[in-house]
Amino acid sequence: MEFAELIKTPRVDGVVLRRPFLPTVEGTLCLTGHHLILSSRQDNAEELWLLHSNIDSIEKRFVGSLGQIIVKCKDLRVIQLDIPGMEECINIASSIEVVDDGWNSFRPRDVFKDLESMTDEWRLSEVNKDSDVCPSYPPLVAVPKGVDDDALRAAAAFRHGGRFPVLSYYHKKNGMVMMRAAQPLTGTNGRRCKEDEKLINATLRPGKRGYVIDTRAINVAQQAKAKGGGFESEANYPQWRRIHKAVERSGVLQESLIKLVEACNEQSHSMDRWLSKLEASSWLAHVKEVLTAACLAAQCIDREAASVLVHGTEGVDSTLQITSLAQIILDPGCRTVRGFQGLVEREWVQAGHPFRQRCAQSAYSGGKPRHEAPVFLLFLDCVWQILRQFPCSFQFGEAFLVLLFEHAYSSQFGTFLGNSAAERAKLSVPEKTVSLWSWLNRPQELERLTNPLYEANGLVIWPSVAPQSLLLWEGVFLRWNRSSERLDEAHEEMVHIVAYNKALQNRVNLLRRQLAQLETEEPLPQTP
Amino acid sequence: MEFAELIKTPRVDGVVLRRPFLPTVEGTLCLTGHHLILSSRQDNAEELWLLHSNIDSIEKRFVGSLGQIIVKCKDLRVIQLDIPGMEECINIASSIEVVDDGWNSFRPRDVFKDLESMTDEWRLSEVNKDSDVCPSYPPLVAVPKGVDDDALRAAAAFRHGGRFPVLSYYHKKNGMVMMRAAQPLTGTNGRRCKEDEKLINATLRPGKRGYVIDTRAINVAQQAKAKGGGFESEANYPQWRRIHKAVERSGVLQESLIKLVEACNEQSHSMDRWLSKLEASSWLAHVKEVLTAACLAAQCIDREAASVLVHGTEGVDSTLQITSLAQIILDPGCRTVRGFQGLVEREWVQAGHPFRQRCAQSAYSGGKPRHEAPVFLLFLDCVWQILRQFPCSFQFGEAFLVLLFEHAYSSQFGTFLGNSAAERAKLSVPEKTVSLWSWLNRPQELERLTNPLYEANGLVIWPSVAPQSLLLWEGVFLRWNRSSERLDEAHEEMVHIVAYNKALQNRVNLLRRQLAQLETEEPLPQTP
Repeated sequence: MEFAELIKTPRVDGVVLRRPFLPTVEGTLCLTGHHLILSSRQDNAEELWLLHSNIDSIEKRFVGSLGQIIVKCKDLRVIQLDIPGMEECINIASSIEVVDDGWNSFRPRDVFKDLESMTDEWRLSEVNKDSDVCPSYPPLVAVPKGVDDDALRAAAAFRHGGRFPVLSYYHKKNGMVMMRAAQPLTGTNGRRCKEDEKLINATLRPGKRGYVIDTRAINVAQQAKAKGGGFESEANYPQWRRIHKAVERSGVLQESLIKLVEACNEQSHSMDRWLSKLEASSWLAHVKEVLTAACLAAQCIDREAASVLVHGTEGVDSTLQITSLAQIILDPGCRTVRGFQGLVEREWVQAGHPFRQRCAQSAYSGGKPRHEAPVFLLFLDCVWQILRQFPCSFQFGEAFLVLLFEHAYSSQFGTFLGNSAAERAKLSVPEKTVSLWSWLNRPQELERLTNPLYEANGLVIWPSVAPQSLLLWEGVFLRWNRSSERLDEAHEEMVHIVAYNKALQNRVNLLRRQLAQLETEEPLPQTP
Repeated sequence: MEFAELIKTPRVDGVVLRRPFLPTVEGTLCLTGHHLILSSRQDNAEELWLLHSNIDSIEKRFVGSLGQIIVKCKDLRVIQLDIPGMEECINIASSIEVVDDGWNSFRPRDVFKDLESMTDEWRLSEVNKDSDVCPSYPPLVAVPKGVDDDALRAAAAFRHGGRFPVLSYYHKKNGMVMMRAAQPLTGTNGRRCKEDEKLINATLRPGKRGYVIDTRAINVAQQAKAKGGGFESEANYPQWRRIHKAVERSGVLQESLIKLVEACNEQSHSMDRWLSKLEASSWLAHVKEVLTAACLAAQCIDREAASVLVHGTEGVDSTLQITSLAQIILDPGCRTVRGFQGLVEREWVQAGHPFRQRCAQSAYSGGKPRHEAPVFLLFLDCVWQILRQFPCSFQFGEAFLVLLFEHAYSSQFGTFLGNSAAERAKLSVPEKTVSLWSWLNRPQELERLTNPLYEANGLVIWPSVAPQSLLLWEGVFLRWNRSSERLDEAHEEMVHIVAYNKALQNRVNLLRRQLAQLETEEPLPQTP
């Protein structure tokens, strides 16, 4: 694939070029195979011709519907392009983005810059830079600006595994946020922690209440107190309404997966037996639980305009399912290829989902599961359900989800190695391995993973969680039981039609140019 | 939609034009918006320019891979076009076919002409022209050439409702046939009928055996003897192997549909309850039974190279499900829009499925079902299952099946009125109503029903009947329970992309012509 073919928006009008100490230029931005060109289209006016190979890094931000791309060049020049239209900006940015090192694709500092362009109420804290405050957190986390690192340390001591409340998602539309944490260590004595209370209250607008979504049933949460855990009591967190939304975890999920795979592989020809076994596996019931809880979190944020704190026990399993799915529902950016990679990186890899333990074995290993649980697979299944219900709203297709499932369990890349950022750093994973994202973001892979029907949909999407709406994910669970040749064919046919479209469009452009040229050229006198 | 847009194959080389008393012309056939043109592309050679509006009727035949189109003109001229390539022939024919009166679209005489082009072993019998031999048969039926009308009358007296064995399908690939009938009236005394035996034996190749597929369990077939019915005993039909493949019928199917629709409409949010109710409805089990029996019939014909006779009790329900589905599997022609219309017309409407009785009420009517049974809906569901498994092999999409379901139960057209051809004739249905096919075959309707991913697939297609492979038909059963907006969107997007493709292709052609014109008009300097 040529670079030129990656250019989604070859031309945008009304772009403003800003450079330090130089006057701004407004004009038309053109992307060619080798250059980024900005021309005011006026005689004698300056034009910018920038070789793609001169681009060292780019950043993008949004101010309302205005997109800004900061281009940092290898010759040390820094320029800013103001691009009207979010989609144009995203297309331009993704076209000139340097094929990147996946290990640096989703750095917290870059993600935080996006946040900073929307609000100044948050800061990046380095309190965990040595992984001693919370071993499963990354070195940098976003927290309310008014809360200092000492308060974070105190809150960490009050939360299971040191997982104090951190920012998971900022809802641009209304400024509401989603935080995640682990359970508070109230114990049977009802221990409290002023810093923890202050921390999460700092996310509330004056006079507003927030929601704590506890992913355990109320009795399970009660029982946790005996082991030193607990939940946010109304007495100590009067501004928060607690909702218990039970989501199944670890051993139960692993058993469910084993039963499901057994059912799928069974050769019996009885429809009743198949449906009974499918039901008995409870897998779809778990899909429903998780999706329902995610919809609840999204509803609190988008419809109730309330901030949300999500946690269960440890905050590394069901919590991440809920926070990441809620973002898929709320944030169109998470439905792009790159946005979804960022989401997986942020909410799973960096957030400390213990991939090494959870994905050590899958459905066939005989032994009793210890830490294994298909938490991430269940999340991917839920994404598939939403994708199936909104087939035009995702830039990626099912193949991308299947691929992530495969790599989470077994991969030649380093992305899913280890249980946490600290473990990966200790093992020098970024130095010794290649990131899955580096590989995936090459044009030839991207092409295979994209959804030919994608049409950017800027809205919140509400999936149906009625049992009738949820289906078995054939692409994973029946993949080896039936020939998928004919189904793949349909996808290939779609891809082919779309590619043919593009080729025809190019042909039309070429012929138009030839025609224009012929028409303007003066007929020459006949030579004898 | 312009006529020009209906032209699928605008140009075919190597076409031979044959006319009485004139030399044949070989050349290139071109279809334009107004003309059919055949040009030998040699100077002074004759060209044929035929206005589409001059075409009165067309017929097509196949001799191996050579297609023949007989064009009968309003000026009384008759010409024949020999077209190399089956697909080209079908496309050319369907492009110039006159928008037709649905009541005459699938006349037995025309269907029989296709058969005659392949074999001369069959004849059209008028024995039932007064509907007195078999009230549920049409006036014309295809039977083995060596069996005369008296023998047919004798066989009719020996079969339930007079439904003597008639031709359902001829498998071009190996010359095997599928026949259908009602049960033989052997009774408890083991009555026999030499003419019946002779009739079906006439379909066997010398030394070959055939299969009788009885759609009842063996004990049900045994019990039928007490009521005067029965089955083909081995003693009297030594050349036939009988297979009992139980398929559920009438009351049981109606109950199943009612339970299924109840389950689909239930507002309970429990996944277990939904799956239990889905299982308890047994609908998918019935889908599986029917598909399995159809696959068996298709296998006997295609893989065992044996002729097949299908019947149950009356031969108007499960028998038709099996014979029509087997044709979908075996015959690529049945997977086109027109071919499928022809199949429904032949194997359901003409074959005497009692639509009036079966589709009088659907799932919500409180009363105890008497003759109601969703036999046709179950057939459509099975077609949907195959379509889902072979998404590129059908010229039509799901919408066509949903539409047929709707019209079978309630329609402003006459096609599904009455229980038989005789009943429709008596009520003057063809004179008093419009055929559904007339309406459907208008370009604007066709466009809505076609599958944008269709790629003609000339092979036999074997659907998987594993329980894991069969899904609930959401398009019918969950249609009113959830918004289909987002799913329709994907279909529309595909249609849009394909239409855009076509527009671009036209644009390319136009620009090319303009370019060629400019280049010839204006001498230009040679460009290197």
